[in-house]
Amino acid sequence: MSQELTQRLTAELERIPLIDPHSHINPHAAASTTLADILGYHYYTELAHSAGLPKAQIEEPGLDPKEKVARLVPKLAELDNTAQYSWLLEMCGTFFDFHDEHITGDNWERLYDSALQKMSQPDWEEQVLQLSGLERVFLTNDFDDPLEGFDTERYVPCLRTDDLVFHLGKPETRNRFQQATAVEIKDAASLETGIGKLFEHFTARGARACAISLPPDFSPRPVDGSVADRAIQSLLGGNELSSADAAHVSCFVFWTLAEKCAEFNLPFDLMIGVNRGVYADGVYQGQDLFDKRTSLINYRRLFNAFPSVTFPISVLAQTSNQELVSYSWIFPNVVTNGHWWYSNIPAFIEQDCRSRLQAVPKTKQIGYYSDMYKLEFGLPKFAMYRRILASALAADFVIGRGWTETRAVELGHLVLRGNVEQIFQIS
Amino acid sequence: MSQELTQRLTAELERIPLIDPHSHINPHAAASTTLADILGYHYYTELAHSAGLPKAQIEEPGLDPKEKVARLVPKLAELDNTAQYSWLLEMCGTFFDFHDEHITGDNWERLYDSALQKMSQPDWEEQVLQLSGLERVFLTNDFDDPLEGFDTERYVPCLRTDDLVFHLGKPETRNRFQQATAVEIKDAASLETGIGKLFEHFTARGARACAISLPPDFSPRPVDGSVADRAIQSLLGGNELSSADAAHVSCFVFWTLAEKCAEFNLPFDLMIGVNRGVYADGVYQGQDLFDKRTSLINYRRLFNAFPSVTFPISVLAQTSNQELVSYSWIFPNVVTNGHWWYSNIPAFIEQDCRSRLQAVPKTKQIGYYSDMYKLEFGLPKFAMYRRILASALAADFVIGRGWTETRAVELGHLVLRGNVEQIFQIS
Amino acid sequence: MSQELTQRLTAELERIPLIDPHSHINPHAAASTTLADILGYHYYTELAHSAGLPKAQIEEPGLDPKEKVARLVPKLAELDNTAQYSWLLEMCGTFFDFHDEHITGDNWERLYDSALQKMSQPDWEEQVLQLSGLERVFLTNDFDDPLEGFDTERYVPCLRTDDLVFHLGKPETRNRFQQATAVEIKDAASLETGIGKLFEHFTARGARACAISLPPDFSPRPVDGSVADRAIQSLLGGNELSSADAAHVSCFVFWTLAEKCAEFNLPFDLMIGVNRGVYADGVYQGQDLFDKRTSLINYRRLFNAFPSVTFPISVLAQTSNQELVSYSWIFPNVVTNGHWWYSNIPAFIEQDCRSRLQAVPKTKQIGYYSDMYKLEFGLPKFAMYRRILASALAADFVIGRGWTETRAVELGHLVLRGNVEQIFQIS
Repeated sequence: MSQELTQRLTAELERIPLIDPHSHINPHAAASTTLADILGYHYYTELAHSAGLPKAQIEEPGLDPKEKVARLVPKLAELDNTAQYSWLLEMCGTFFDFHDEHITGDNWERLYDSALQKMSQPDWEEQVLQLSGLERVFLTNDFDDPLEGFDTERYVPCLRTDDLVFHLGKPETRNRFQQATAVEIKDAASLETGIGKLFEHFTARGARACAISLPPDFSPRPVDGSVADRAIQSLLGGNELSSADAAHVSCFVFWTLAEKCAEFNLPFDLMIGVNRGVYADGVYQGQDLFDKRTSLINYRRLFNAFPSVTFPISVLAQTSNQELVSYSWIFPNVVTNGHWWYSNIPAFIEQDCRSRLQAVPKTKQIGYYSDMYKLEFGLPKFAMYRRILASALAADFVIGRGWTETRAVELGHLVLRGNVEQIFQIS
Repeated sequence: MSQELTQRLTAELERIPLIDPHSHINPHAAASTTLADILGYHYYTELAHSAGLPKAQIEEPGLDPKEKVARLVPKLAELDNTAQYSWLLEMCGTFFDFHDEHITGDNWERLYDSALQKMSQPDWEEQVLQLSGLERVFLTNDFDDPLEGFDTERYVPCLRTDDLVFHLGKPETRNRFQQATAVEIKDAASLETGIGKLFEHFTARGARACAISLPPDFSPRPVDGSVADRAIQSLLGGNELSSADAAHVSCFVFWTLAEKCAEFNLPFDLMIGVNRGVYADGVYQGQDLFDKRTSLINYRRLFNAFPSVTFPISVLAQTSNQELVSYSWIFPNVVTNGHWWYSNIPAFIEQDCRSRLQAVPKTKQIGYYSDMYKLEFGLPKFAMYRRILASALAADFVIGRGWTETRAVELGHLVLRGNVEQIFQIS
Repeated sequence: MSQELTQRLTAELERIPLIDPHSHINPHAAASTTLADILGYHYYTELAHSAGLPKAQIEEPGLDPKEKVARLVPKLAELDNTAQYSWLLEMCGTFFDFHDEHITGDNWERLYDSALQKMSQPDWEEQVLQLSGLERVFLTNDFDDPLEGFDTERYVPCLRTDDLVFHLGKPETRNRFQQATAVEIKDAASLETGIGKLFEHFTARGARACAISLPPDFSPRPVDGSVADRAIQSLLGGNELSSADAAHVSCFVFWTLAEKCAEFNLPFDLMIGVNRGVYADGVYQGQDLFDKRTSLINYRRLFNAFPSVTFPISVLAQTSNQELVSYSWIFPNVVTNGHWWYSNIPAFIEQDCRSRLQAVPKTKQIGYYSDMYKLEFGLPKFAMYRRILASALAADFVIGRGWTETRAVELGHLVLRGNVEQIFQIS
């Protein structure tokens, strides 16, 4: 009974057109052109590498897409247990009419070719959006992205700020900043002026969020202007910054971003907990890990200082979920946001989804985002989440609390879509 | 089958009269007088505030109870997913014959009035206890509580010591101490003498526990008398204490409390992990959060030093549950105690309850306490726990290990009631 | 349906002969000789002590085995909820035809005597292996174990190195080292030479792994030879080492072990997170606990520095499981290994098992090891794990992803046995 109930709820949730509030889609090349775009996703390359495929084989310069797939396919047998592999099969089934139980040395060429045929159709991007039920997709734009040449209604700009906060020490970053803003960084004041110009540009082009990923030990705080000035001088002087000065610069920029979010009325997506480059010899985008010893208490001053800024928070460590639930339960400006990266597998989503539904006001939960690089991944990722959401709604609300199915679906709608519209002010 | 089994076990557990081993009940006004006493519980005010209701509207001085409810009710629609809201409906159903699916702008006045009528009955307190199956309720008494004017058999005194350990720097605390003990704090020795007098007073009035809540970074240790003397001198001199001296005073008082617990044969309830005032502009009692980076290893010296003192331990972070299970599994004087605050929702209780039942001697588990401020909350909170307990007994013991239902209920009885009697020496 | 499916999968998994990749078996006395060998396992003595049985009664010198059992049995009633007690009943049922619901003061002597009769049979060890489906069992050998007088095909040697890394300051350890290697430790070079001799000895006798347990705060790093020399000089001088020097020595030895694992092509089992002697007055082997504030980020340099060494990792804290999953997902040389000690109860195994199956390449998961001291424990421990594994395979793979039962059993086979053969190079 419970299984049929879950299926009914899933079916209802599938009818809701989606707004994906976080992705890495390139709006100029949103869909894949070959199966290599799909199998080249770091989830597959890193798992194949982890299972023993040498990095050099995966990342050989000038590698032909078909040859890349040919090299990855034999390793899939060792990954076929993973949730990521199940996404692959779901994509191949829905998009390419591929219904074999496995992708193997015997059948991959057929799959490759039928995928190529589909992807070559001029409306492939439209087809993917249609089949996936995706209406809009948020982007992750570099701060110097011109945001031109694409439909910003469909692909919603989002100002990504990691480079500004953590890499201002690189001359390249400062050059890009000057190009983008026509402001030369001389001190704290000019830096703030330039950041303001970025916000003007992004909001004029329809940006709906500012976003950043943060390491586990980051702890935002305001930085006195004169302290920031001195640290920036040192940075401009080309010096290797002391760790104290580097922290001053990062905190100054971060705090300024929060101020601009308040001024420009933008939510500030915080993705908390990633250590970059932990596995230095890992494949592209497969080098980052984390230290679970982090706490949202680090953000205490921030949340208190900016009551008018909404902070959609993603946590990398599943052990951070209860803090996220509790901080969202108390702070009006903290909302839960999706199931990020290493926490984005059913065993973790199930627990995290249930506790959020049980303890955070329902208007303060952004259920899911795809985090995808290519458009095809929206389908299986949202499908995975929807099944888990439906299962939680069935067990805890319809069965556990006697809710009608209609009411449970309404809650699902809010978490899947309604809150995205509300929080990011999508008309 | 499993669902019916759980229902049968729940029904059996419902027949067990309860002793609630921790609450914040005021024995002079135990039950609510209007619905505002219920909706004014911080679980509702903080969630409503988190969902957007301004604090000023909730905490307006002199606010009429009915008006307060009128302001909170519209926000309930945004919280109706929470476990807390389900408690509210369960109370309204059982106590006030209110069986609507929602509490809304259209029906709340009817509810308010019928609640008022019930609560105005002279035996309302008795009715609540009766309907809730509550026999006795532990209190949380300030150290200077005269403990007079109420039935200490029904409302069991408990010496709460946060003020002594963490706020002795406030002249007000020391004045209250002197009033209560007739001892003026001059040094470590007089402080200890006074604390002894508090224990005499409390145990003479039937106190069954000493209790305290502790921040995540607290680490108890003995403090040399001369070190304590110097720190106390500094404190008496009205100085802002250095953090080292503040820690000396806190640790000295805490260690003295443990010594007195040994001397007076009282369990020492430790509620570990709360950071006070994290959200400074939060509503009353809705400002506290936590840092999950804490460990019971901080209590290593304490548990070793006081083998004769039983420490019922509550942890705020769900990620601390396994440590609690493991420390209780090894240390004879450590017992598990309830599901506290941010861990008191089904998704967390289920996991914590199961692991405790699987790994801690069954005589060392205090299943649940209400933590309530008003008597009506005992009913839905214990009901929530009982359903989860029954479900764990069904799955892991009756189905998983072939136990008879009778035996499973006996285990449930022990955890719900028997251990409370044994550990707190309730005759 | 799901329950019957799980039973079918369990039955299939039961047909797989086991290789137990970690135990503390004494190959010269692998099986028990009386029930006291079983009830004397620290899981029972520590739980009985935790429930109130004085240590002095359990560890009285010269205590007769039967008297020891007589003292422990009355406490079992307080532990009969634990997973550990269920192991006991399962052993008594399968091995000794004991099918009473409880072990009590009334029936234990009968059980003791029938166990004694069985255990006295000359082929008892063979019977246990046969009934348990155990083909081979890995040992935990002291570095100076001669590894003689037993069948190293059946009982696979494993070089345990805690003493070398953490107790080289003890003259006794150095004496044992000199005896075993014919090398006197004079400096870093001679220490390394001696360690090389240990590896030669162990691999010549069929060792398949090097292993160590590590405290939560250990963080391996290479140590410069001259720094190591100075620290070793200080150690040889009989000085109490500074904590810095102690860390230098530990890290030097540890790093040298990793180098030798690379040279000798041995996996290096890391068992991460135990604090020794936390409860100083606990029973034998019942004194250790943990601090959950640890992270695999501490092993970042190690994993990067030794790409050719496989590190099967066990974590003591369940809150470390997601890190283990994520590090195994990314690092080719990190594999998940079993469910260790305080995490070895169903409530934790279930979660950890599911997340590993969903996110780590299937060839990189060692499902389970017994950690047993006496051979009889393999049966109930592996049985517990197999049931949980079957349940996860049923829910997440057969039902959740439409796998055939055959395919699910193949995954189970890999995790239970295939990967042990592959990773430890068992022919």
